[in-house]
Amino acid sequence: MRLVTFQRADKSQSYGTVEGDLIRDAGAVLGGTYPDLRSVLDAGATADLDGKGDTIKMSDVTLLPPVPNPEKILCIGLNYLPHILESGRAKPEYPSIFTRYPASVVGHGTPIERPLASREFDYEGELALVIGKAGRHISEDDAWDHILGYSCFNEGSVRDYQNHTTQFWPGKSFERSGAMGPWIVTSDEVGDITAQTLTTRVNGNVEQHAPISDLAIGIPEIIAYASTVLTLKPGDIIVTGTPGGVGRYRKPQLFLEPGMSVEVEISGVGTLVNGVIDEPSA
Amino acid sequence: MRLVTFQRADKSQSYGTVEGDLIRDAGAVLGGTYPDLRSVLDAGATADLDGKGDTIKMSDVTLLPPVPNPEKILCIGLNYLPHILESGRAKPEYPSIFTRYPASVVGHGTPIERPLASREFDYEGELALVIGKAGRHISEDDAWDHILGYSCFNEGSVRDYQNHTTQFWPGKSFERSGAMGPWIVTSDEVGDITAQTLTTRVNGNVEQHAPISDLAIGIPEIIAYASTVLTLKPGDIIVTGTPGGVGRYRKPQLFLEPGMSVEVEISGVGTLVNGVIDEPSA
Repeated sequence: MRLVTFQRADKSQSYGTVEGDLIRDAGAVLGGTYPDLRSVLDAGATADLDGKGDTIKMSDVTLLPPVPNPEKILCIGLNYLPHILESGRAKPEYPSIFTRYPASVVGHGTPIERPLASREFDYEGELALVIGKAGRHISEDDAWDHILGYSCFNEGSVRDYQNHTTQFWPGKSFERSGAMGPWIVTSDEVGDITAQTLTTRVNGNVEQHAPISDLAIGIPEIIAYASTVLTLKPGDIIVTGTPGGVGRYRKPQLFLEPGMSVEVEISGVGTLVNGVIDEPSA
Repeated sequence: MRLVTFQRADKSQSYGTVEGDLIRDAGAVLGGTYPDLRSVLDAGATADLDGKGDTIKMSDVTLLPPVPNPEKILCIGLNYLPHILESGRAKPEYPSIFTRYPASVVGHGTPIERPLASREFDYEGELALVIGKAGRHISEDDAWDHILGYSCFNEGSVRDYQNHTTQFWPGKSFERSGAMGPWIVTSDEVGDITAQTLTTRVNGNVEQHAPISDLAIGIPEIIAYASTVLTLKPGDIIVTGTPGGVGRYRKPQLFLEPGMSVEVEISGVGTLVNGVIDEPSA
């Protein structure tokens, strides 16, 4: 199944499933029981969405981040092995984790915003996974069972703010600077996610291209480590890191400007497309 | 006013104000309109709590973190000037910001938990401020107007996890590893917070002692910087950094063990006291 959260033409919010170019508006049927997709996941009721609701043309709605209100968005730093090795570093022992707030993320088709405060706005194509089953102290063996599915993420990064200190958070949490979508593909439909490939295009040019199998800290290790710290909950997002090819290290550098377009494609998952605009003046 | 969130003897949750050893249960009167203290702050209705509700003895309730469900807890790294200078570093230009999740914080009188995964559990006494008025791109001149009040924070830190990578988050977000309280003192009652002093005692011994005026990045600068990144909202917590004297750098080192007690006292604000227990086995 492909799960979406969307805004109808009348600005009301709903959720449902994707069938080709159509969305089934499951929220119109189940909204009384589950006000949003996160509460569907909390109830372990994803299967209830299957075939529920009338269809709407996808072009008639605005897609939002598939889970617009996750409790947590945990992001992993530099995590693709060839890129780590080429930069002269050793394979990391532990995942480098920082967080983003949901307000920093828009959905597929909505422009991301270059902050007023910076001209160093960069893209990072990443695989996001969505937790479907809560757990603490999850073993690597059990980790896959806690994943609901996968999505594409553009971890828009404000490089000067990221590098003001050792802590990445300021550069990673600007409002509407990142994107997730277009949907969550449930893991049963994806099969082996490590057999898939990530590609980021800026204005149509391929800037990042790597197999998911290049992840230095693998998905089970990330889930085990994060759940040592705290309980992972349904709807939590883990963004697994970006491969080489980001704009900061490109020669010449490539920072995002209004009018550009960024696509993050993961085979078997989908393609997330976002334009770029300037943050509106206050 | 002193604002608290608490659990009554029957396990129901409420909020109110403190008068000496008594709590006025404002939530019993206003709960239909404002289900929790955060919604009181969202409505800008703090003044409505004054004198509302019957009194309960404080010893008959369990204090929770004053805002148990903030949208954001932003923490500032190393931020007391003498400690920075003595460690051979220059005054930082920017605040170093990372985040904690609310599940990592308990209230006054509830034990903090040493994680099963570590023996390097450390204390950090800090001043916390609570946002009362939303804002983005807040100027330093306007910053004080956005503060509702102040509280004490023990930023319990798991040092090995904090140092696994450059990113502090894993060491700062273990469940129930930190504490906030006992209450929020509104800024009108505190007056000039920079004239106050922070003291941390472990088992009664003073381990940290510094004037708030030693903050390297001051409160207005922190608020201006953080609000450049995103909108600060009522109930958001900013934890302003810890002075020298943490257990990791003490000679000999002093890590927290079950049975110990940590007090964080800020003059004019209050004293936060928490015992230490081991994280319960699963």
